Amino acid sequence: LKVFTCNANPDLAKEIVQHLGIDLGVSHVTRFSDGEVRIKLEESVRGCDIFVIQPTSAPANEHLMELLIMVDALKRASASSINVVIPYYGYARQDRKARARDPITAKLVANLVETAGATRVVTMDLHAGQIQGFFDIPVDHLYAEPILAEYFRDKNLKDVVVVSPDMGGVTRARGMAERLGAPIAIIDKRRPEPNVAEVMNVIGNIDGKTAIMIDDIIDTAGTITHGAKALLELGAREVYACCTHPVFSGPAIQRLNDSILKEVVVTNTIALTEEKMNPKIVTLSVAKLIADAI
Amino acid sequence: LKVFTCNANPDLAKEIVQHLGIDLGVSHVTRFSDGEVRIKLEESVRGCDIFVIQPTSAPANEHLMELLIMVDALKRASASSINVVIPYYGYARQDRKARARDPITAKLVANLVETAGATRVVTMDLHAGQIQGFFDIPVDHLYAEPILAEYFRDKNLKDVVVVSPDMGGVTRARGMAERLGAPIAIIDKRRPEPNVAEVMNVIGNIDGKTAIMIDDIIDTAGTITHGAKALLELGAREVYACCTHPVFSGPAIQRLNDSILKEVVVTNTIALTEEKMNPKIVTLSVAKLIADAI
Ligand SMILES: Nc1ncnc2c1ncn2[C@@H]1O[C@H](COP(=O)(O)O)[C@@H](O)[C@H]1O
Ligand SMILES: Nc1ncnc2c1ncn2[C@@H]1O[C@H](COP(=O)(O)O)[C@@H](O)[C@H]1O
Repeated sequence: LKVFTCNANPDLAKEIVQHLGIDLGVSHVTRFSDGEVRIKLEESVRGCDIFVIQPTSAPANEHLMELLIMVDALKRASASSINVVIPYYGYARQDRKARARDPITAKLVANLVETAGATRVVTMDLHAGQIQGFFDIPVDHLYAEPILAEYFRDKNLKDVVVVSPDMGGVTRARGMAERLGAPIAIIDKRRPEPNVAEVMNVIGNIDGKTAIMIDDIIDTAGTITHGAKALLELGAREVYACCTHPVFSGPAIQRLNDSILKEVVVTNTIALTEEKMNPKIVTLSVAKLIADAI
Repeated sequence: LKVFTCNANPDLAKEIVQHLGIDLGVSHVTRFSDGEVRIKLEESVRGCDIFVIQPTSAPANEHLMELLIMVDALKRASASSINVVIPYYGYARQDRKARARDPITAKLVANLVETAGATRVVTMDLHAGQIQGFFDIPVDHLYAEPILAEYFRDKNLKDVVVVSPDMGGVTRARGMAERLGAPIAIIDKRRPEPNVAEVMNVIGNIDGKTAIMIDDIIDTAGTITHGAKALLELGAREVYACCTHPVFSGPAIQRLNDSILKEVVVTNTIALTEEKMNPKIVTLSVAKLIADAI
């Protein structure tokens, strides 16, 4: 058993090997002068079971190509199995033809990973569970919910309601609510007419309660911060947010800063750069969960 | 027949469709907020023979992923054939295991292009001709040599010798020399001992002659500018350089500027950004050559 990392989240990889009580495999994933990926494996992998830790977070194309080239190198160096650990699966939102002539990039990525030579995938909180079926190799699908729930349980918040920021997240909110022994509520956004501002309705009782919003991904943070504002206006006492994958692109950090959110609880499936760190953001580690699956 | 382009070289695509007397297919290849590629095909491709123009030049990973996702979208939109035109084939130099445990990224890329759904490849001056065999689909391999040779023939230079900058390029230099009715010479770099500067020998007569150096790729321009300096010192009257693929990374432009080269003649397989334009650089178009192959 050997564990390697590319450049997307080396800190997570280090934490995982600590849990496993082994050293990280030595490799160098750099760039040639023209920006092409250059990979050097510094130790033999012949006959070994290999795990590669690499979320395909932004820059998704760079991180995906690093992963594919790493898998190619491992395959040609006669590794006996190549398990790719993709804690955050980039392109997961391009999972169906929402419009005519859309690509289905989530399926393309699955095919690319298999073509490169991966023999098994470990991933977490896929945007759509169906992506498991895009692979013909085994997929281990892990959930961060217990980790997020444990954090909130330990906080001992009173009178909690778990809120789904949209209809698509109801099942996720229900799972969390069950773990916390709390009720759920759902934000129902409606645009009464085209070009008229959206109206936020809340289904369920939030009056005077501590709301915990849960989503799989926070990207530009529009959904979560607008939702939080509505919850407060409609009677919630205070609002927390949590998600598995802190994509945090574009105006996300600014919006979270400016928002009424007390805390934004995320996991380290995606590495947060210095400038995305923030007193409001609490990061929980998924390293043990992944180590247990290895 | 429809022709689409991604973002690597839209100008070349426009020139190609002009030669074909048709309009460029309408599509938008942009990015989502988090940097993931977003592709919209704005016209039907059902039952059409499609050509996609996209060199996988720097940033290679971005341009390759654009191409793969474009092919995926075309395939799912029921195009009847998908011909990918890759005038510059990125990762071509990672074409064999030069060291233990190297990836063979040129082969990986071939597999990825096939997996995405391409049915035929058109490319130019592959760094290694063997890359054709990495594909199981038809590969049309075009040569820029006639275009480069024609340019120099029209210049009516006197007393020309065609020079290969290294042993690997001898065949290429011979082809060019035959076209120009000129003799050839070869630069033979030797390092007499480790950590001692290289010594440049020239095989063949360059005395008082106009040397034209030819290579497939000029990347950091070290080989070509050091070679040019040696040629002048060893008796050449003046030195020109030419290549098919102007990768021009890192110190390339500075080196070419500072060099004794009279002219650097390249083609537009790779789009040169404004800051890489330069009075010394002459760009010849491969658009007609590609249009003829379509
Ligand atoms: N990286 C991305 N950022 C934002 N939106 C995306 C991204 N990838 C895909 N989408 C869009 O998100 C929608 C699907 O999201 P959802 O309805 O939450 O599954 C589709 O309309 C996609 O075109
Ligand atoms: N993008 C690149 N830039 C510079 N060198 C590369 C690149 N890709 C591969 N190489 C190296 O170039 C060598 C092969 O070049 P060549 O001998 O000219 O075919 C190998 O040692 C590769 O590791």
